[in-house]
Amino acid sequence: MTTRTSELTSDPTGLHRVLDEPAVLPQAARRLDTRRELWPDEVRIRVEKLNLDAASFRQLERKHGGAGQADGDAIRTEVLDIVASRGKMQNPETGSGGMLVGTVEEVGPDSPLGLAVGDRVTTLVSLTLTPLVIEDGLRRWDGHSEQVPCDGYAVLFGRSIAAVIPDDLPSDLSLSVMDVCGAPALTARVVEGYDGATVAVIGGGGKSGSLSLAAARRAGAGRTIGVVPHEREAEALRAAGLADEVVVADARDPIALRDAVTGAGGPADVTVVCVDVPGCEGGAILATAERGTVIFFSMATSFSAAALGAEGLAADVTMLVGNGFVPGHAAYAMGLLRADPGVRQLFEARLAAEAGA
Amino acid sequence: MTTRTSELTSDPTGLHRVLDEPAVLPQAARRLDTRRELWPDEVRIRVEKLNLDAASFRQLERKHGGAGQADGDAIRTEVLDIVASRGKMQNPETGSGGMLVGTVEEVGPDSPLGLAVGDRVTTLVSLTLTPLVIEDGLRRWDGHSEQVPCDGYAVLFGRSIAAVIPDDLPSDLSLSVMDVCGAPALTARVVEGYDGATVAVIGGGGKSGSLSLAAARRAGAGRTIGVVPHEREAEALRAAGLADEVVVADARDPIALRDAVTGAGGPADVTVVCVDVPGCEGGAILATAERGTVIFFSMATSFSAAALGAEGLAADVTMLVGNGFVPGHAAYAMGLLRADPGVRQLFEARLAAEAGA
Repeated sequence: MTTRTSELTSDPTGLHRVLDEPAVLPQAARRLDTRRELWPDEVRIRVEKLNLDAASFRQLERKHGGAGQADGDAIRTEVLDIVASRGKMQNPETGSGGMLVGTVEEVGPDSPLGLAVGDRVTTLVSLTLTPLVIEDGLRRWDGHSEQVPCDGYAVLFGRSIAAVIPDDLPSDLSLSVMDVCGAPALTARVVEGYDGATVAVIGGGGKSGSLSLAAARRAGAGRTIGVVPHEREAEALRAAGLADEVVVADARDPIALRDAVTGAGGPADVTVVCVDVPGCEGGAILATAERGTVIFFSMATSFSAAALGAEGLAADVTMLVGNGFVPGHAAYAMGLLRADPGVRQLFEARLAAEAGA
Repeated sequence: MTTRTSELTSDPTGLHRVLDEPAVLPQAARRLDTRRELWPDEVRIRVEKLNLDAASFRQLERKHGGAGQADGDAIRTEVLDIVASRGKMQNPETGSGGMLVGTVEEVGPDSPLGLAVGDRVTTLVSLTLTPLVIEDGLRRWDGHSEQVPCDGYAVLFGRSIAAVIPDDLPSDLSLSVMDVCGAPALTARVVEGYDGATVAVIGGGGKSGSLSLAAARRAGAGRTIGVVPHEREAEALRAAGLADEVVVADARDPIALRDAVTGAGGPADVTVVCVDVPGCEGGAILATAERGTVIFFSMATSFSAAALGAEGLAADVTMLVGNGFVPGHAAYAMGLLRADPGVRQLFEARLAAEAGA
């Protein structure tokens, strides 16, 4: 009933909701138009939860008192301010956003997304370009977790991506997988380009890391190496059986990282960076063989540190910006979860720990 | 005479000169040890000129009054402060540095670089990781140009790269080419991976852009498109004959850039971003075909804008961090300059304009 035809034609990229002058794409925009009336190719979602990007949430924690002792009220106020002033959740420091979960509330007549009213979905495009209005002041959120219960609405464009949440799996489990589903799909594509590649995954015990390890093995890796920050995580990753070798190293220490990967059968033909801390570029480059590839999935990656780091080391490596979109990525990642008990085990343990925290 | 054996063994990456705790690589370090005594695998250069990275110099201009009306003294003071406090020239905002020209002053007995005392050289690794001491207060520099006359010394590590400046070409010409020699070499490698690629070079009239256009054609591109910001530059690029099509567009306007490239025979299989202004990520992605590749050479590139931009557009493109090092890059770029009159013409015109400015 509220579908609206406007004098301004909609663009599948969402350009028609950008309020900046001159116009930029929604992701780069300072401010989006959050009107609830839809253009004909849009979809409106009733939001139930936001899932903040890990790098973004950590920055907020650091700013407001530090991890473990942060002021949750201050973090909540800042998130509300960002969304109110920008019309989207995009951390001004990290540039990153997150994703959301909700239920389809209205579908414009020209929407190409194939969604129906009542579908429970998650967005696979970033919150940084998704028009968002929070209507409950986030009162059910204590500010101490990336998982943010929320009532409000969001808008999807013609070229957005959303996945329907499967019925046969716990929804938190599906969501944690879909949140990082770009990583395993791109890892698989790169690993297939080598013959029996040695693959090192930095942060191999985490969500995108464990999926990337499973993807590398399925894509024909000759050897997989998981690098984790401490022994507890190493034990969990060993128990999951996702990597041929599991080693402990601080990824911010380039020499330690190089030595750990080399000692486990490296250097790597493909190094996948999945840790959300700054300063891992140098070590990742040093851990990679000549003519190898580094894939940076962490939003904490610095473009100039990577570019100048490789140049400064005279390292002939290909460095990829981890594109979160590969066609079929959500289905591929869900397939890994269903097929690989080790992946499921790690995800379930992580969810249990988060619930208990 | 001053070669020094230390209790601290030198590392080819220069780690032994990093003063940060815990240790990081020299490029990521806050502060480097600039002692003039050499470790056995090092080389000391008597500096005659610094060549500041374009993105860095523009940031300094903006900070101190804006392009064309900047306070040169303030810019000089800031550069001196940075080098004095960090032991290297690395702009804290852009993270970038530049290169230097000088004469080899001393060669450690174990240096693998093949240099001899008296060689006139340029560094092909960034100033961001090169120990540097300025000894003349930059008094010959007015703060209004990226070219900084300078007396002082710098140190090269075992794994650094320096090129001897050819005798048969004007040295300013050789230097401008070597400054950006990573771009054409990587462009050629990527273009060779496609069959008769359509290649768009954003900033095709600039130094790295014109070399990348020449490299793309030599590497078998089916069509080359140069995108420039205004008609004057378009005329110069057309006269140089380096591109099949030359179009004018503002690279920060994603829709304008997409339409310009599409109208000139795109979308591109390979898009090369060579403009030193922020905000070109979205347009570059939109100008690129599915399964195409975007190579980001600009230090003004934002990692998160690229990663989230592609995801937000559901764009299946490969995005490369422009690695400034490819084996043989300096010789390859000098070969393009010698073989292609159009390249030489653009470089000479640019040098003449800078000299006249």
